[in-house]
Amino acid sequence: MDRRTFVKTLPALAVAAGASSAFAEDLQPIVLPKPEKDGGKSVLASLWERKTTREIKEDKLPPQVLSNLLWAAFGVNREAGPMGLPGRTAASASNSQEIDIYVALAEGIYLYEAAAHRLAPVAAGDLRVKAAKPGRRSAAVAKAPVSIVFVADLAKYAQAKFQEPGLKDPEIQKSYYDVATGLIAGNVYLFAASQGLGAWFHNCNKPELSAALKLRPEQRVLFAQTVGYPAKG
Amino acid sequence: MDRRTFVKTLPALAVAAGASSAFAEDLQPIVLPKPEKDGGKSVLASLWERKTTREIKEDKLPPQVLSNLLWAAFGVNREAGPMGLPGRTAASASNSQEIDIYVALAEGIYLYEAAAHRLAPVAAGDLRVKAAKPGRRSAAVAKAPVSIVFVADLAKYAQAKFQEPGLKDPEIQKSYYDVATGLIAGNVYLFAASQGLGAWFHNCNKPELSAALKLRPEQRVLFAQTVGYPAKG
Repeated sequence: MDRRTFVKTLPALAVAAGASSAFAEDLQPIVLPKPEKDGGKSVLASLWERKTTREIKEDKLPPQVLSNLLWAAFGVNREAGPMGLPGRTAASASNSQEIDIYVALAEGIYLYEAAAHRLAPVAAGDLRVKAAKPGRRSAAVAKAPVSIVFVADLAKYAQAKFQEPGLKDPEIQKSYYDVATGLIAGNVYLFAASQGLGAWFHNCNKPELSAALKLRPEQRVLFAQTVGYPAKG
Repeated sequence: MDRRTFVKTLPALAVAAGASSAFAEDLQPIVLPKPEKDGGKSVLASLWERKTTREIKEDKLPPQVLSNLLWAAFGVNREAGPMGLPGRTAASASNSQEIDIYVALAEGIYLYEAAAHRLAPVAAGDLRVKAAKPGRRSAAVAKAPVSIVFVADLAKYAQAKFQEPGLKDPEIQKSYYDVATGLIAGNVYLFAASQGLGAWFHNCNKPELSAALKLRPEQRVLFAQTVGYPAKG
């Protein structure tokens, strides 16, 4: 772990936010407020509202909303889950928890550390456009307040305690981590619908994200999901 | 379409339910009550309860609960969705709606027809064990009241109006239909948590299901998800 995990002073953050290719060391971790236990619409009512929203305002999400969003996506919801690991809001094969979610904000890209429920800086600067596949719709992603980037870590499957069938087979691994991505993205869609937020699951700029996030060879950038207040309605 | 879609008399259903290899023609379609608009826990409260539950009672689900479950999974939630098609509770690439959900009940396996919100018979007899991968856990699936079987229909991608990148590439198709499966399964997990039901996403007996469902070459059996009342708590 080569990230600095102590909280830096606010002036350092302000400088980093203005630079387009700053170092992650110039960003401070973001300590998120505790996720709330209730609030918003029921699951059934939210399913009636579920849709893809591509027109999203630039307005930032308040810290509590960002906290609830990331926890809803793939937070820890119980200490004692399967395989001796904490339980998460989304299932994964043998509870391998092979998906990491990276979070692109205006200040930089962060790794969501679920156990500590905080954001660790990975790349400083406004890199939000990389969460979009280049093309006519990338401008909307570049200005939206939050994009979640889904990254599979195949090293997680190597742990011997995981016994799901085919966990060493690349083809089967791919089906597991893509389903795991959908399970997390489904949580995001329903959380967004429950709170009047808009959400949009889409392709992303895989090569540029892989480079910016300095991923290991076992990690694969998969998709992204943009969230914010809907421009309409 | 070689299924009979009119409603047969109840005695015919009773006969079919007792046979282990009856014909789908001996089963009647199941007209589901309209899905409810609200009720159950909030999305946030449900996410705190989200987990995999493998110990499920044999008790049947009441018709309204079965209706809500299948609608929550992948029902129509608005007439005017993207690409000139109805909108669904779960997203799919270019709204291709490439996943069909088949429903294994004690009486047989049915196709969930989302637009009509009903179950069309596909294979008669108690075939629930096929929704499990053979092994020590298959007995639990065989006795649970409902298993949803996820089947991708690659023919859907051939429609020219769908323009998502790579929709003709088999590798990219696979990532799309596996994510789509996860999005639907995520709806099921959260609906179950909101209603005090247990749910379990797992592998299934792909060759036997493919045969029993008489699938076309473009269709792929992917996974299954078992739902019912939890045996504990």
